[in-house]
Amino acid sequence: MRLLSTEIRAAAENGTASVEAAGWVHRIRELGAVNFIILRDRGGTVQLVLNEKHNLTLESVIKVEGEPALNEKAPGGVEIRVKKFEILNMAQAELPYQVNGDASKIGLESILDNRILSLRNPKIRAVFELQSVIIEAFGGYLRSHGFTEIKTSKLVSGGTEGGTELFAVDYFDSKVYLAQSPQFYKEVMVASGLERVFEIAPAYRAEKHDTPRHLNEYVSFDIEMGFIDSEIELINLEKELLAHIFEETQKKCQNAFSLWKSSAPLPETAAKSPVIGYEEALKIVNDEASKAGKARIFDITPEAESLLCAWSERENGSALVFVNEFPRRYRPFYTYPLDASRTMSFDALFRGLEITTGGKRQHDYACFCEALTKFGLKPEYFPGYATLLKFGCPPHGGFAVGCERLTARLLGIANVKEASLFPRDRKRVLP
Amino acid sequence: MRLLSTEIRAAAENGTASVEAAGWVHRIRELGAVNFIILRDRGGTVQLVLNEKHNLTLESVIKVEGEPALNEKAPGGVEIRVKKFEILNMAQAELPYQVNGDASKIGLESILDNRILSLRNPKIRAVFELQSVIIEAFGGYLRSHGFTEIKTSKLVSGGTEGGTELFAVDYFDSKVYLAQSPQFYKEVMVASGLERVFEIAPAYRAEKHDTPRHLNEYVSFDIEMGFIDSEIELINLEKELLAHIFEETQKKCQNAFSLWKSSAPLPETAAKSPVIGYEEALKIVNDEASKAGKARIFDITPEAESLLCAWSERENGSALVFVNEFPRRYRPFYTYPLDASRTMSFDALFRGLEITTGGKRQHDYACFCEALTKFGLKPEYFPGYATLLKFGCPPHGGFAVGCERLTARLLGIANVKEASLFPRDRKRVLP
Repeated sequence: MRLLSTEIRAAAENGTASVEAAGWVHRIRELGAVNFIILRDRGGTVQLVLNEKHNLTLESVIKVEGEPALNEKAPGGVEIRVKKFEILNMAQAELPYQVNGDASKIGLESILDNRILSLRNPKIRAVFELQSVIIEAFGGYLRSHGFTEIKTSKLVSGGTEGGTELFAVDYFDSKVYLAQSPQFYKEVMVASGLERVFEIAPAYRAEKHDTPRHLNEYVSFDIEMGFIDSEIELINLEKELLAHIFEETQKKCQNAFSLWKSSAPLPETAAKSPVIGYEEALKIVNDEASKAGKARIFDITPEAESLLCAWSERENGSALVFVNEFPRRYRPFYTYPLDASRTMSFDALFRGLEITTGGKRQHDYACFCEALTKFGLKPEYFPGYATLLKFGCPPHGGFAVGCERLTARLLGIANVKEASLFPRDRKRVLP
Repeated sequence: MRLLSTEIRAAAENGTASVEAAGWVHRIRELGAVNFIILRDRGGTVQLVLNEKHNLTLESVIKVEGEPALNEKAPGGVEIRVKKFEILNMAQAELPYQVNGDASKIGLESILDNRILSLRNPKIRAVFELQSVIIEAFGGYLRSHGFTEIKTSKLVSGGTEGGTELFAVDYFDSKVYLAQSPQFYKEVMVASGLERVFEIAPAYRAEKHDTPRHLNEYVSFDIEMGFIDSEIELINLEKELLAHIFEETQKKCQNAFSLWKSSAPLPETAAKSPVIGYEEALKIVNDEASKAGKARIFDITPEAESLLCAWSERENGSALVFVNEFPRRYRPFYTYPLDASRTMSFDALFRGLEITTGGKRQHDYACFCEALTKFGLKPEYFPGYATLLKFGCPPHGGFAVGCERLTARLLGIANVKEASLFPRDRKRVLP
C-alpha cells in the first residue's frame, strides 16, 4: 500500500522492509553512481535514492518501491532506497512555469497566468489547504450552535442591494442576474422556522475596479439568525466563530503558516476585540493619522481600517476590530435603525482589512416600506420582501465573511486574488 | 433564557418555575375562558395555555414566559401556562398559503409559487434539515479520508462537455458561461498535488426539458482523486460515502423521515450493492421488463433505472446499483477507455434514479488528443487540458452526486424540485 511522504519516517523507525510511494518529481540531483530525486506528494516531500539514472523530467509522476531508511543528511532525515521504479506519466521537458522555485519571487500576474502549474508550488498550494480548514471550521462551529446549512439559488431576478453592479445571464428567453448575496434568501430561511442558517457559496459583484481587496466572484460565508435584539449578539457570535477558526487553523495548518511565515491570532484575543461606534472609530483613526502626520480621514477607508487594526493590536492585543452604529446613509435600506441617524450594523476589520459586513435587519413591513422610500426606492421593486415581512418575520440579523479575505489575512497575503483558486477579475476568466 | 419547544418537557420534569419561549403561532383554539396556541419554533411545536384572549393571527411571531407543566392531554404531553405574552411581529390575517395544512394535499406548483410561506410547513422545511445533514456527512466523510475541500470558479470560457446547453453571462465586454461542472478544475487540483479533492457548489444546465429529475441549477457534490487504477476504487469510495450518509441521516433526521414516512437504507446494504457491466445491466433490465410484460429497452433509461433498482432490492437487499463499463459513445471524450468499445466509467442508481456519474479520466495527453478527434473535437478547444496533461498529471478519476436527487430519493420525494430551496426551471426564477 502506498504511503505518504510524511509516513516514511515512521516506517523507517519501525524497520519496515519496503514501502511504496508515488508523486511528482520535485527536484533531481544526479551524481552518476547515486542519483537523488525529491518526490512531492500531498503530504510533503521525501528523498529517493536511486542507483540507476532514469531519463526523467521535473514534474513527471512516478511510483516507487524501496527500503525506507533514516539518514541525517537527507531533508527531513529520511529517504527511500528505491528498488522498483515506474513512470506513471512523463512530463514534457520545457515547463512553462518553475514549480519548485520561490513563489515569493514571482509576480502575481505570472502566478495567475500559469495557475494550472503554479498551484503545484507547495507554498501556493498551502493557501488552499488552509482555506479548506477555514471552511470546515466555519461550518462545524455553526452546526454545533443550532445552525442549518442552506443552498440558495444564485440566479435572481434583481439585486437585493438595489440593482447595480450585477452580471446579467441569458436565461432561456429572459434575463436574470448572478446573486450579489443570498441576503433575501437567508432572511426567508430564518422566517421559514429554521431560525439559524448559514451558506457557503459564490457571490458576484460586477465592479469594474481592480484592487488588492476585490474579486468579481468570491466565496461568501453567510450567516443569518432570528430572535436577536441588536447587532451585539451577531458581533459576539462572530468573535466566537473567529476564535474557533483561529484555533482550528493554528492546529491543522502548521505547514501553511510556516511557509507563509505567519500564524493565527491566539483564539482568546478574539474576545478582547473592541466594539467601537462609527463616530468614535473615526476619532481614533484621526488621532492615529495625526500622530503619523497623515491627512484627515473622513470615512472608514482602507487606510482607516489599517490604522484601526494597528491601534487595537497595540491597545488590546487584538488585530480584530468591530465598528458598529454606521450612519444610515452608508447602509442598505433593510438595515435596522438604532436612532434617526444611526443603524444596528457593523463591520469586522481584521489585520487591516474589512472581512465582514452585517447587522440587524428591518422585520416590520411598514417600517421597511418607509425606509425604502427614503432611499428613493419603491416596495414594488421587492415583491418578495412583502411576503416575507407581512406574515410573521421574527427580529433577525446576520453577516457575511469573505472567505478569500479571511484566508489572505490569516497568511499575510497582500492580494485576495492569491487566495482564490481561479480568480475572476475584469480581464481574467482563464484558466 | 429562551428554550426551544423540544426543551420544555425536561424543564417541566425538573420543576423549573418559569421558561421563556418564542416562535410562530401555528394554531389557535379559543374556548373563551381558556385559550390554546400551538407555538412553532425550529425544534418543533409546544402548546401554550392562556387565560386571556389575544387579538392574534396565524403565523404571528410571539414571545412568552410561563410555567412549564406536564399534561397528558397536550400534544407531546407538555404545555406552558403563559404569564407574560408579547407579540414580536403581527402577521396579516389573510395568509396566501395555509402553512399548517397537510403538504401532501397541495400541488407542487402551488408549493413552489408560495415558496416563502410553504417552507414554513414542518414537513416541507424538514427536507432541508435533512439536506443540511447530507452536506455535513458528505464533507465529513471525505475530510476524514484525506480529501481537501475546494471552491472553483463558476464562470468559465467554455463547456467541459463540449459547449452545448450553457447559460451565457455578460461579463464586462465579453461572454462567459455558467459552469456545468467543476470537471476541469477538480482535475487541475488533483494534479496540483492535493490529490484528493471535493467541492460542494452550484452547477448549471441550460436544458429546456422539464422533468421530475431535472433542475437548471442544482447543487453538485463533486469528488476527484489521483493514483487510481480503475473506476472500481471510485465505486468502493462511493459505497462507503453513501453508507456514512445513510447512517448520519438516519441518526439525526428522525423528524424528516417520520414526516415523509421514509427511512434511510441500512448502512451495511451499501457494501452489498452490485456492480454490473452496462451490457449485463441491459440484460437484467430486459429480463425484468419482459417478466412485467413491457416492451424491449435499449439503453439505461429512467424506466431501466427503476427496474434495475427494484431487481437489486429484491436480489441483494439494496436499492443502490452501480452500472459500469459504459460504451464509449455514451461518455465524454475525457473518459478512460477499458478497451476499444467500453470505458472505465459508471453510474450509481439509487431507488430508481441515477444519482451519480463518474469514471476514470484520460491522463495521457496523446491519448486525450486522439480521443478528442474521435468525437469530432479539436485539442485547441481545450487549451487548459494541454497544460494539465502535458506536465505530469497522475492517473485519476472522480464522480459527482446530485444533492437534490439524493435528498429526494432518501425521503421518497417524487420531483427533485421539491428538494431544492428555490428551484430554477425554464419558467421559474422566482422567488
